Amino acid sequence: MNRLSHVRIVLVGTTHPGNIGAAARAMKNMGLRDLVLVTPKVFPSEEATARASGADDILAEARICPDLQEAIRDCALVIGASARLRTISWPQLDPRECARQVTAGNAKTAILFGREHSGLTNEELERCHYLLHIPCDPEFSSLNIAAAVQVVAYELFLVAQQQPHDDANRPLLATAGEMESFYGHLEKTLYDLRFLHERKLGPSVMRRLRRIFNRSVLEKKEIHLLRGILTAVQLRIRPQA
Amino acid sequence: MNRLSHVRIVLVGTTHPGNIGAAARAMKNMGLRDLVLVTPKVFPSEEATARASGADDILAEARICPDLQEAIRDCALVIGASARLRTISWPQLDPRECARQVTAGNAKTAILFGREHSGLTNEELERCHYLLHIPCDPEFSSLNIAAAVQVVAYELFLVAQQQPHDDANRPLLATAGEMESFYGHLEKTLYDLRFLHERKLGPSVMRRLRRIFNRSVLEKKEIHLLRGILTAVQLRIRPQA
Repeated sequence: MNRLSHVRIVLVGTTHPGNIGAAARAMKNMGLRDLVLVTPKVFPSEEATARASGADDILAEARICPDLQEAIRDCALVIGASARLRTISWPQLDPRECARQVTAGNAKTAILFGREHSGLTNEELERCHYLLHIPCDPEFSSLNIAAAVQVVAYELFLVAQQQPHDDANRPLLATAGEMESFYGHLEKTLYDLRFLHERKLGPSVMRRLRRIFNRSVLEKKEIHLLRGILTAVQLRIRPQA
Repeated sequence: MNRLSHVRIVLVGTTHPGNIGAAARAMKNMGLRDLVLVTPKVFPSEEATARASGADDILAEARICPDLQEAIRDCALVIGASARLRTISWPQLDPRECARQVTAGNAKTAILFGREHSGLTNEELERCHYLLHIPCDPEFSSLNIAAAVQVVAYELFLVAQQQPHDDANRPLLATAGEMESFYGHLEKTLYDLRFLHERKLGPSVMRRLRRIFNRSVLEKKEIHLLRGILTAVQLRIRPQA
């Protein structure tokens, strides 16, 4: 029984196939199997297979996606690795906290690792409930992507090994798709209200609202409650228009 | 002041120069600088420099030794990484214990990593005070050597770094009083909307909403945004009543 079977590693826009292979090896060392590649530059590749060094089964089972949304659609928890300690107040986890958070439940979880030189885009990071930062020397802070996967997988393995099973009665978390539908509904309602029109602040307001609700890690039932409120607002506004 | 300046990484009989470069990068990420190579198969090498990716200063300063004895002559503590959980009763450390042990003092310390396929020989392991084993899936237990260096260096960095966080630039969180005013405003708005009346669910709905926002740990500015939305709802509803 694999305690980490709900954890997916998503490599976004990886340039060097060797890194994909090395990441697969790091995953398999630590009991992770679910690898998704978003628009890898070169894959499959002999170099990836060589660097996987026996983890070629992970590569063979890896799914390739044309965009991030497709890769995380079924995920309730999305965590994005970020080399920079951004000034924006997105909730941050270090690998140990990340491991605790991820193994606290068994909701499908994606951990995203970005491009070798530029990481994840801000737009991609906004899809994340948490940013994951690996502590390191601030003067030389860019870890190799497979090395980053190794550290995160190692912490996951440690925590997964320690914890007894007791996941039966945990509430179901909303999936990334359900979160997107909620944000769409929220944005529409704010336009109906003329709240966004008047301020011409749509993107920035929506970003701030996403941050609030992402931090909260919503359950499915909570999404239903919040959308019920939005619907009530829309019903009271429309007849007036 | 580098808390890890007494720590040396010793790579013994490394076959692939790319691994030497990747290990140098992992070291520099975590504030380690002292690299010693015992009979590397190929070094220096373009591949090592490429994989070092900016840690070429570590490579340039690396010392090459003809045997292990030469590499550890000035070391008071010698720790050897070993993939296998050997049956011999050598004292073992995991990376976290290793980091504590190494940073407990500042005696010159060598941490040895063996050959890609065969690790350290028994004779080499016998020079060690401790064996270091990285916990991993016993069915696929051979970590890449640079990945192993990364995990060990990461644990060293964490322990070396342990100091209070700098809270200076954190956003101001909402006070308990501000949260109560927000919940009062939210409840009033839901009554104005007839959302609560109709369902006779006031206390239970408010409890669930409190849980959502409490989990999120709101900032003062976020409270202002949310209350701005509530006010916009109230303004659009009232004329209708």
